[in-house]
Amino acid sequence: MVSEAKSYSEPKAVTRRRKLRDALIAAAERMIEAEGLRGLRARDLALRVGCAVGAIYNVFADLDDLVFAVNALTLEQLETTLTVAGGEGVDRQADAIRTLVHLGLAYTDYAAANTRRWRALFDHRLPEGRDVPTWYRANLHRLFDYIERPLRQLAPALDAAPRALLARSLFSAVHGIVLIGLEEKLQSLPLGILREQVTAMIEAFGRGFAVQGGSA
Amino acid sequence: MVSEAKSYSEPKAVTRRRKLRDALIAAAERMIEAEGLRGLRARDLALRVGCAVGAIYNVFADLDDLVFAVNALTLEQLETTLTVAGGEGVDRQADAIRTLVHLGLAYTDYAAANTRRWRALFDHRLPEGRDVPTWYRANLHRLFDYIERPLRQLAPALDAAPRALLARSLFSAVHGIVLIGLEEKLQSLPLGILREQVTAMIEAFGRGFAVQGGSA
Repeated sequence: MVSEAKSYSEPKAVTRRRKLRDALIAAAERMIEAEGLRGLRARDLALRVGCAVGAIYNVFADLDDLVFAVNALTLEQLETTLTVAGGEGVDRQADAIRTLVHLGLAYTDYAAANTRRWRALFDHRLPEGRDVPTWYRANLHRLFDYIERPLRQLAPALDAAPRALLARSLFSAVHGIVLIGLEEKLQSLPLGILREQVTAMIEAFGRGFAVQGGSA
Repeated sequence: MVSEAKSYSEPKAVTRRRKLRDALIAAAERMIEAEGLRGLRARDLALRVGCAVGAIYNVFADLDDLVFAVNALTLEQLETTLTVAGGEGVDRQADAIRTLVHLGLAYTDYAAANTRRWRALFDHRLPEGRDVPTWYRANLHRLFDYIERPLRQLAPALDAAPRALLARSLFSAVHGIVLIGLEEKLQSLPLGILREQVTAMIEAFGRGFAVQGGSA
């Protein structure tokens, strides 16, 4: 049903669309970094990019879609900080705990250095009935794999399902410490102290978990 | 400088003011429970209470002040769930861990049953430069005392300052698990599983911490 004329003009339109999409994402990144998720308004966005407000919705179904695109880039940035020098020491348990601490500190440092971007990952609330896109959820779960590996080392007998659940919980625990640690309302902690707390909590958890995992 | 007439009329004005204050807090509680913090708008509030919008600001400096009043009541509700049957068993360490688990589960249950009220404690962001009232911060810190007591049992040699810091971190860790556990975006966990996770994490932390605290 595509006319010849339209078929010829399509590549150009696609390029234009992709350029607009990239420009909108880049502008949204800057706005979120400057003012957080609340700073993201369609009118300001259109003004920055130099397009009509309506043009935004030719590229993204809505602003939530645009936020997912930005948050996916944030997850990618975060992932690049998680590359771990493989623990090849003699003590498997100590290695695994060291890896978990390394991951926890990488997360802490990223959040401290990119607070508004990082907050946008969690502050983004969807309207009722709207689901998180599957591709985005898959990206998120890939990050949990980094935690699962050392957990497997700590408790080799633990099944995959409870291990995945525990990885989520350990991530959540560290997230909570960082979240409240950086929260100005409760007096934020200096980064050095926050890092010490994350280290102490993960080490205590790791030792206690290895004991339980070994005996269970 | 108070005229006789004004002095006579004051008690009545004070009563009226207090009644309006109570009515505004009660209405704000219902609105936050129904729609969360975002549902709190001055105009709707005035409509519900049957006063002029301006009258709200005769009683509260701004809506943030009103939110602090509601959040203080939430903290009080939360505190009533934390009353712990004193652990009088033979094993001090096991007792302390049991107490920590009890506190963590009470927190989990409160958050699950009163999700919007509980979220309002954390979603409430202040404008730049505006500080949390001292009285509110004191209420918050009182809650951390509940966690410090069992930590003292677990590691009697630990000084007060690092213990207070650790109590905050342990609270934050449990908060993170509950926060992300109840988060629909990441598929929320059934309450039973969430409670198991909180229990497992606190138990592992408690054991590991007792080992470290004992040797440090």
